[in-house]
Amino acid sequence: MSTEEVAKKVVELTNKQAWYEALDTLYADDVVSVEAYSMGGGSPETHGKEGVRGKIDWWVNGMEVHSFDAHGPFVGHDRFVVQYDADVSDKKTNERRKLSEVGVYTVKDGKIVREEFLPRVD
Amino acid sequence: MSTEEVAKKVVELTNKQAWYEALDTLYADDVVSVEAYSMGGGSPETHGKEGVRGKIDWWVNGMEVHSFDAHGPFVGHDRFVVQYDADVSDKKTNERRKLSEVGVYTVKDGKIVREEFLPRVD
Repeated sequence: MSTEEVAKKVVELTNKQAWYEALDTLYADDVVSVEAYSMGGGSPETHGKEGVRGKIDWWVNGMEVHSFDAHGPFVGHDRFVVQYDADVSDKKTNERRKLSEVGVYTVKDGKIVREEFLPRVD
Repeated sequence: MSTEEVAKKVVELTNKQAWYEALDTLYADDVVSVEAYSMGGGSPETHGKEGVRGKIDWWVNGMEVHSFDAHGPFVGHDRFVVQYDADVSDKKTNERRKLSEVGVYTVKDGKIVREEFLPRVD
């Protein structure tokens, strides 16, 4: 798949909250996933597809998703960006909050090899 | 300046259309600027601050800007993203069009060392 095709698939599957389908079909085995902040003092980087699967498990088990909207994609060469707006509640604390962030993705040989998540700071 | 401070300055100066002030205060001498498409069959990459000044000259001389809005920034580590919506007319042809794109910026030692522009494709 071209970068644009991968990008459009990410938007389509994210809007369906089909996280595992996205992982299984679009990600390289040695993908690196980078958060802006690390949880619990660990590294903000997760290495490998199974590590990303763990992040999805954490998300699905921990969050009640009221809405999750993907905007874009924006595409150039081997890079694409998707902008996300979400409204979620933490299942443990019931704390509800809105998230706004972008994902910056790098594609190689038709698969996502790197993703970085950048929260909105304004 | 931190990545977040540089990012907020880009949003502030872009909303004022202060392109040259942004270049002179926020960009590294050896910056690389990447467009999604190249014009006239050349490279989509421009190297160096004076090359970027040439791109600004082209923009300012060629475009009548009806509106130019920067959204964000989105920030993580050494990277930030700004989303742009513009409404412009080509001064030569009078053709008016809306532009929607993101800039993906990389910061090193408080200066922008790389920028990539990715148009919206949906």
